[in-house]
Amino acid sequence: MRAALISVGSELTLGLTVDTNSAWLAARLAEMGYEARRHVTVGDDWEEVAEEIRRAAATADLVVVTGGLGPTLDDTTREALAEAMGVPLQSDPEALEQIRAFFRSRDRTFSESNARQALVPEGATPLRNAWGTAPGILAEMAGTEVYCLPGVPYEMREMFSHAVWPRLQRVGTPGVVATLTVPCFGAGESRIAEQIADLMQAGREVTVGTTAAEGMIDVRLCSWASSEEAARAVLGREAEEVRRRLGTLVIGAEGTTLEAEAGRLLGEQNLTVSTAESCTGGLLAKRLTDVPGSSAYFLRGVVTYSNRAKVDLLGVAAELIERHGAVSAEVAQAMAVGCHERSGTDLAVSTTGVAGPSGGTETKPVGLVYVALASREGCEFRELKLGGHLARESIRERTCSTALNMLRLRLLG
Amino acid sequence: MRAALISVGSELTLGLTVDTNSAWLAARLAEMGYEARRHVTVGDDWEEVAEEIRRAAATADLVVVTGGLGPTLDDTTREALAEAMGVPLQSDPEALEQIRAFFRSRDRTFSESNARQALVPEGATPLRNAWGTAPGILAEMAGTEVYCLPGVPYEMREMFSHAVWPRLQRVGTPGVVATLTVPCFGAGESRIAEQIADLMQAGREVTVGTTAAEGMIDVRLCSWASSEEAARAVLGREAEEVRRRLGTLVIGAEGTTLEAEAGRLLGEQNLTVSTAESCTGGLLAKRLTDVPGSSAYFLRGVVTYSNRAKVDLLGVAAELIERHGAVSAEVAQAMAVGCHERSGTDLAVSTTGVAGPSGGTETKPVGLVYVALASREGCEFRELKLGGHLARESIRERTCSTALNMLRLRLLG
Repeated sequence: MRAALISVGSELTLGLTVDTNSAWLAARLAEMGYEARRHVTVGDDWEEVAEEIRRAAATADLVVVTGGLGPTLDDTTREALAEAMGVPLQSDPEALEQIRAFFRSRDRTFSESNARQALVPEGATPLRNAWGTAPGILAEMAGTEVYCLPGVPYEMREMFSHAVWPRLQRVGTPGVVATLTVPCFGAGESRIAEQIADLMQAGREVTVGTTAAEGMIDVRLCSWASSEEAARAVLGREAEEVRRRLGTLVIGAEGTTLEAEAGRLLGEQNLTVSTAESCTGGLLAKRLTDVPGSSAYFLRGVVTYSNRAKVDLLGVAAELIERHGAVSAEVAQAMAVGCHERSGTDLAVSTTGVAGPSGGTETKPVGLVYVALASREGCEFRELKLGGHLARESIRERTCSTALNMLRLRLLG
Repeated sequence: MRAALISVGSELTLGLTVDTNSAWLAARLAEMGYEARRHVTVGDDWEEVAEEIRRAAATADLVVVTGGLGPTLDDTTREALAEAMGVPLQSDPEALEQIRAFFRSRDRTFSESNARQALVPEGATPLRNAWGTAPGILAEMAGTEVYCLPGVPYEMREMFSHAVWPRLQRVGTPGVVATLTVPCFGAGESRIAEQIADLMQAGREVTVGTTAAEGMIDVRLCSWASSEEAARAVLGREAEEVRRRLGTLVIGAEGTTLEAEAGRLLGEQNLTVSTAESCTGGLLAKRLTDVPGSSAYFLRGVVTYSNRAKVDLLGVAAELIERHGAVSAEVAQAMAVGCHERSGTDLAVSTTGVAGPSGGTETKPVGLVYVALASREGCEFRELKLGGHLARESIRERTCSTALNMLRLRLLG
């Protein structure tokens, strides 16, 4: 079954924004046996959008249009769809009421431009959007279903999952392209690839590839089969082999993160954790608390950006900072130990380093970072040399990943 | 001048990889006066690639194809281009020698599949690639130049900059498409659009549009002119008018953020800030310290995720938490005041709320958030109803944006 994707927005054609919606939709559609054979991006020009909708509807079994449903005049998908269908637009009373209700529930004032969002081509159906103001639209053109969804990624994803996916499931599809990702951390991409080199050869039943981003290595497995169960079985066997070879380099199940895995282990072992951050400036606590339910094991954190704060909040000796510098193994350990003592948690993690872009010296260059982990059994630390070629953001992300991985490995025993 | 972009690769149509090449190319081409009106992504199918090349060449003044130039059989751009041109492929001796030299220089073994990469349609010109094995191709189809570049982003960018850009510069283009973005925060997209509705009408010298993401509204200005200077002058005047109408809803210059602007004002006024976070779990401190040099004004932060931590680290009265609940205006203010007193900074910002997805009640639903700002002059707070339709991540981001905006507005006086 062929699908066609159309992304609408001049911010996309001008290159101001990268289109992430198409890849997300293509992956979801593949899971249901639809190949998104062509993705097209066009600007806010209703004639061009109409032409692409006509072309897509004529060649594909399913069309998904994202973007161009906002309240302003540069949002042209409604007009384009009506033009492609050759019908007029009309205001849908139910959609209008839903938009008004959305504004009421958030104590916001409904403005007349929002009434534009209730316009729907004659014969088409508005799709309820509980996540934003723009309703979606479902139309049929010569047997092809055309779905129009908002361009804001989270609204689009929610609407797809709630309004499109269940409809497509009901229709039924002939086969599936299934993928499975094994998330890894703790070694470079080439070292991981060497350990599974034979599995990465072309022509096998499962296609295996790797992707690296900020120190995380994803091992991607992809297979085509007649049913979800068949594809899952093949992928499951292959993933088992990958896991066997890579051991603790594998973080956990597909979709997990270092913070989710550390959190899962903390919960399982009924332990608590606290954080003491310098160079990561709150990112470590933020990542731990990205996980819903993290309040069960994450109790507190401090961001001791100034030396004074390290002394006040963690009891680090001013003399120690003076002797070794704030970026040192000694201070990282004193921070973790102080945090462990003062917070009363079972474990405490600390970070200190030079995140850049300035502030580096010959002996302490940008990218030099220390992370430490304290518990009743004592304190361990790691020195990282992340290199000055990395951006501030990357240095901070990788520092936190290393700290979370230390925590994970400690909990694994 | 119209450009068309074609990205080739089944990893893109399957949604395993996000296409970042098109946005990058569109932005570079705009700087030279080319509007990339349509971006198309197709899989590794030579007939479909050929069809897209034919269509693009017939409607645009310039076509750039990326991907599909690798050594393996699923790389089909060479065959597709030859088919679209209606000519045979032939091996180019110079391109072949360059590929062999590339392998020699890296002590890698040349394999016969790499010889495929020296194939070029009759009448087309190979483009040297010093950054990888795949030469690019330049062809002309009925007056339209078609450039084929490798899909690996780094190689593509280098080849574009060294082989395409200089040629386009030599040919000379009739003008430039310049863009300018005015970043705003503090009102919904429709309310902002109403205040500049006349500027957003079609047919004016400057095209004005809006884009919303996580509560941030970008007003995008786009203009076409004979030179960079002329375009900048027109955009500058238009931006001035937008700024005049929107007042303090405008955060600052293009590319700035709430945290950078708050930081700039803190630095200018020689003031310091600290943070006390509950629901945002470190994200507020993280965003403040995303800004290089933030250690000059951000001294410390605490993440008081448990009630006990609010009492210990901020001196919030346990009785106050018991009476009003941790998510209340009273506790938010006590957190900010406690943080201000204990940290010794000029300003202190606090957050407390229900980030979800669980933990909401009828009186305190998911999305109910309080932010407070304390200083010597006293304490102000805001109640936000972000709505349970938002993801945990969005609720946390928007809470921090509101807190940073309170700080910015206070510093503006």
